[in-house]
Amino acid sequence: MASAITPQATDFPRWYQDVVSTAELADNGPVRGTMVIRPYAYAIWEFIQSGLDQRIKRAGVQNAYFPLFIPESYLAKEAEHVEGFSPELAIVTHAGGSELAEPVVVRPTSETVIGEFMAKWIQSHRDLPLLLNQWANVVRWEMRPRMFLRTSEFLWQEGHTAHATEADAAAFARRIHLEVYDEFIRTQMAVPTYIGIKPPSERFAGATNTMTLEGMMKDGKALQMATSHELGQNFAKAFQIQFQTDGGGSDFAFTTSWGASTRLLGGLIMAHGDDAGLVVPPRIAPYLAVVIPVRDDDDVNAAVATIGRELADAGIRHHIDSGRGNFGRRVTDWEIKGVPLRIEVGPRDLAEGRVTIARRDTGEKIPVALAEVVATVRRLESEIHDALYEGARQRRNANTHEVASVAEAIEAADSGFARLPWSVAAGAEAELKTHAITVRCLQRADGSLPEREDEPGLTALVAKSY
Amino acid sequence: MASAITPQATDFPRWYQDVVSTAELADNGPVRGTMVIRPYAYAIWEFIQSGLDQRIKRAGVQNAYFPLFIPESYLAKEAEHVEGFSPELAIVTHAGGSELAEPVVVRPTSETVIGEFMAKWIQSHRDLPLLLNQWANVVRWEMRPRMFLRTSEFLWQEGHTAHATEADAAAFARRIHLEVYDEFIRTQMAVPTYIGIKPPSERFAGATNTMTLEGMMKDGKALQMATSHELGQNFAKAFQIQFQTDGGGSDFAFTTSWGASTRLLGGLIMAHGDDAGLVVPPRIAPYLAVVIPVRDDDDVNAAVATIGRELADAGIRHHIDSGRGNFGRRVTDWEIKGVPLRIEVGPRDLAEGRVTIARRDTGEKIPVALAEVVATVRRLESEIHDALYEGARQRRNANTHEVASVAEAIEAADSGFARLPWSVAAGAEAELKTHAITVRCLQRADGSLPEREDEPGLTALVAKSY
Repeated sequence: MASAITPQATDFPRWYQDVVSTAELADNGPVRGTMVIRPYAYAIWEFIQSGLDQRIKRAGVQNAYFPLFIPESYLAKEAEHVEGFSPELAIVTHAGGSELAEPVVVRPTSETVIGEFMAKWIQSHRDLPLLLNQWANVVRWEMRPRMFLRTSEFLWQEGHTAHATEADAAAFARRIHLEVYDEFIRTQMAVPTYIGIKPPSERFAGATNTMTLEGMMKDGKALQMATSHELGQNFAKAFQIQFQTDGGGSDFAFTTSWGASTRLLGGLIMAHGDDAGLVVPPRIAPYLAVVIPVRDDDDVNAAVATIGRELADAGIRHHIDSGRGNFGRRVTDWEIKGVPLRIEVGPRDLAEGRVTIARRDTGEKIPVALAEVVATVRRLESEIHDALYEGARQRRNANTHEVASVAEAIEAADSGFARLPWSVAAGAEAELKTHAITVRCLQRADGSLPEREDEPGLTALVAKSY
Repeated sequence: MASAITPQATDFPRWYQDVVSTAELADNGPVRGTMVIRPYAYAIWEFIQSGLDQRIKRAGVQNAYFPLFIPESYLAKEAEHVEGFSPELAIVTHAGGSELAEPVVVRPTSETVIGEFMAKWIQSHRDLPLLLNQWANVVRWEMRPRMFLRTSEFLWQEGHTAHATEADAAAFARRIHLEVYDEFIRTQMAVPTYIGIKPPSERFAGATNTMTLEGMMKDGKALQMATSHELGQNFAKAFQIQFQTDGGGSDFAFTTSWGASTRLLGGLIMAHGDDAGLVVPPRIAPYLAVVIPVRDDDDVNAAVATIGRELADAGIRHHIDSGRGNFGRRVTDWEIKGVPLRIEVGPRDLAEGRVTIARRDTGEKIPVALAEVVATVRRLESEIHDALYEGARQRRNANTHEVASVAEAIEAADSGFARLPWSVAAGAEAELKTHAITVRCLQRADGSLPEREDEPGLTALVAKSY
């Protein structure tokens, strides 16, 4: 194969960059740390967007849009928040031909500006819960950018909600975390994750509790796929989000925020990709199948057209590769792009009334009767999804080690994750960091999501990470 | 009615602000000229987005995403472009805690950065046409902001394409203009427009030809609803978008760009709204119908629930207003929000096996048998759309005057549009401007879209505008 992709085992970061570039997913933007998302990757992002958006709306949340520019003074209203974000801010000092009286910040996240408007819109307990979400770009200046994973500008959704009670806020954030993020990432992206809460040192700036989903990439490192925060009354007090209670008194609301970003594209690449390139999970694949004529002859072209029509009638996303070029090279190109199925249509197969369907995930080649193409593609969509998920789950489990000491955890984190008692890890965060290892999340011993980090008997999941 | 909306005849700009605020469409952002798009308006925007996006994809265009930040030097590469946009730019001078070596511009539009990447991706005539679009926010600093119509940040789609020949570029821009913009605005927003080309003085900075769709607002002023530009080889030469021709030579590509923005929401408000508030065209209405119990009693509530189920089963977007509160006030609130149909469910009607359906556009109240509710709502969706379109078309035609002189045009533009020979208007643009009148577009005498502004016998459409 002519592919210019570095093998994963040789150099995983180079493999990643090679896939991003040869599969035409993204290019570096002209301004440091920014990226151009190319059409093929953007099409995957559109599936991620619409899948998350449906689930967010199902939870009763409404979309809105808040401004890109935030007065610098807003960020300062929440002390931890400004401290957390200051080093990453991009600042507009001139606009409309003159210097601004107050510089404005390009939003790194929108808690502050949304807090300001929640305060305006919320008067009474009847206005609660207020459930908002926005799809937007945000800017966090990156010193060590890496495509999709850490870019100075990225695309995301950020949900922001206000509730009358702490319990209601906690329950809603948890619902989003499990019914939106985990459900989508598991059932559509085929990525199994560990679900837990961040230790205090790793919490979002201004949060009282941060829930995370940690995926294991193929090099054994962790990637935070999405986070959901309880913000307590911190932002409500900073922005005066107050409401009249049922009893006629007044209280500050409890707010939450939660987000998932184009970083998910990086997770998808590293959770499923292999030495031949990208492997796109079928349910979010721009094309579930690509139809490739083995040779440019009339019978083949007619069969390709018929199959294309049948796939279209069945509502199956597909692409007809009618480009001339070398057949082998086209096969390699579609492998690099990770299209789940190739339907190869050649004269020899046709003479026997069939085509060959090749699975991207296993490489398996399946002879299929012409009349069975649509049904087979449909069946394989689910089979491939399940196989990708199951493969990732087994890999994850095989590379997660239950350990008792910090030394064992450091060793295990060379190639995967370690789980050790939080009581042991709690005092060792600084030591772990010298090995580039962090506590990714805290879980109950059975792997379930705890309520708070002070629950007794919690387990810390530690790993190197992106 | 308790509505706090200023009548249109009293003060149209105040009417507009009142509708924006009482229908909860948008709020001013904290930074001058920015806006918060509230959920109800954003839901309408989502219909506009998906309607345009489908049509754009149908034309063979792929979505992508380019960075928000553009090096200042890029804009300078196309002389007219930088001159046109310089006064409106917002500039980032500091990021990541230090001053930037080269300031970056927050995109006012993306011709330059997309031009840079087109140059990289296009090698041969086989790479053409390259058809790209992005959904994004852009920033153009506004000295006299007006919600939706002129805001310092707005949301839009911007299409950018490259072609091997000028004819192909022109045909594609025209196709987008007619099959995407005109078709959508007419069949979904129920707004008739005049289609023409801008005179040279009003062209997009860097374009060789700009096509526009001009809608007439209820005060007789024009609103530019969408524009499509042929850019000739201007950007191709500035950014070296070159390709190998079929014959083995080398040529610069011909590019186009075209956009429609959240300004369409302003157009929708002013094209259809009345003294009772917003009137949302049914095909892009977040709710086609709202079901309102006249009284809070068991029979009424049971009937409301049944109707809700039937509407849901029929896939009709609706909202059940189960809030208690005063019935008359709730009716007014939904009128302000412009929901096309109110289904009022009261005990007296129910006793006779029916409900009352009220049309927002005409105020007409129709008694409808319970069994006929879904079918009636379905039928009225099309009837209301047609009535809104036809009403707007008649208003537009009645307020468009064919004139022969500049003096007559100035008089006509006090309350509507004037059409006069371009040969007459061409020398009078400066004089017209002293009356706040501009040439909105040039058309053929029969109203059709010309190819170029030097075609003989063109007519100029002149008006005051937003």
